[in-house]
Amino acid sequence: MKLGVLGTGMVGQAIAGRLVELGHEVKMGSRRAGNEKAVGWASEAGEGASEGSFPEAAGFGEVVVNATAGGASLEALEAAGADNLTGKVLIDVANPLDFSQGMPPTLSVCNDDSLGERIQQAFPEAKVVKALNTVNASVMVSPGALGESTNVFVCGNDEGAKAQVEELLRSFGWGEGRVFDLGDISAARGAEMYLPLWLRMFGALGTGEFNIGVVRGK
Amino acid sequence: MKLGVLGTGMVGQAIAGRLVELGHEVKMGSRRAGNEKAVGWASEAGEGASEGSFPEAAGFGEVVVNATAGGASLEALEAAGADNLTGKVLIDVANPLDFSQGMPPTLSVCNDDSLGERIQQAFPEAKVVKALNTVNASVMVSPGALGESTNVFVCGNDEGAKAQVEELLRSFGWGEGRVFDLGDISAARGAEMYLPLWLRMFGALGTGEFNIGVVRGK
Repeated sequence: MKLGVLGTGMVGQAIAGRLVELGHEVKMGSRRAGNEKAVGWASEAGEGASEGSFPEAAGFGEVVVNATAGGASLEALEAAGADNLTGKVLIDVANPLDFSQGMPPTLSVCNDDSLGERIQQAFPEAKVVKALNTVNASVMVSPGALGESTNVFVCGNDEGAKAQVEELLRSFGWGEGRVFDLGDISAARGAEMYLPLWLRMFGALGTGEFNIGVVRGK
Repeated sequence: MKLGVLGTGMVGQAIAGRLVELGHEVKMGSRRAGNEKAVGWASEAGEGASEGSFPEAAGFGEVVVNATAGGASLEALEAAGADNLTGKVLIDVANPLDFSQGMPPTLSVCNDDSLGERIQQAFPEAKVVKALNTVNASVMVSPGALGESTNVFVCGNDEGAKAQVEELLRSFGWGEGRVFDLGDISAARGAEMYLPLWLRMFGALGTGEFNIGVVRGK
């Protein structure tokens, strides 16, 4: 499959790299084609890896991944262009973290709204699926390192899009029953508002190599 | 030990009942002594169970549990009286859920503040420990029903108070390594902002009999 991954940070590199490893063609997008990190990634990631501008990457992908910083996501997607997202699955991995008040960050949107919803509202012709934002980059693409008992969450308004994302997550190593469907895109509030707890656990554990597993009573 | 449990709802009844079962003396507090639910509970819970007003219950307890509805907690604690909380461990189990906008509820305080912090600020002489607010009433007091692998969170500014709460949680069945210390009371933001995710999982699972376990990489 052809995928566009918007964002050149750790998350973008981890996801784009894993997708190439799995045999997909991936164009990493950034504000301007020729971005140093994107060029470096494309030259090392192997066959199927390329880079370009946001619109080039979004236009290239049958599926588009938003791996930009949450505070810059709407702007990046505007740059990518609504036309390049129309009818496509848009996997939103970003968290609306606001570091302007110092550490730990707050959320720039939460409670009665979410970044996932704002993206869906701004791009009504895209099929937004919030996913993977509750784990760090390495857990996203290699969940098996934590064993078989942790979960990742998806939510979105389009069932077919969620099924397609689940299939992709399965190929990353998220096993049977480990992809938890929270419902429609408004559930992005839940997935994003988990971040403050994640950040405290990160602080207490001293590592981002952790995740939660949901255990249900019999 | 003598404990005061403020609140007569499911959470208050579950915690107060479990404490009596474990041999503690417990006074359940409500707005007015003689509250029907509190009287009913006290008459059935067995030896050691009694009921009274908020100030009577808080004055009775060496440790006080806030199990009132989050939206009413500060008012209930004001009624209980700062003098009756001075120097005591105050376990805050409440969630600041706001149902005024319909379902699912939003939080009446979050992001750069929390109910736990507001309570600590309003009662600086109490040793507030946020705990148990991330699970439903039955999981709080009988975590073993979900197996041995889920977690409960504590946070607060006083290490001794947290140790005392951890001991109490151990007696409820939270085993070795299952009480996760998130840090100071500002971490209540994390524990409370988890609620929107909990509510979505509750909706998807169709039961509140679940919890999360933290899995750390090797």
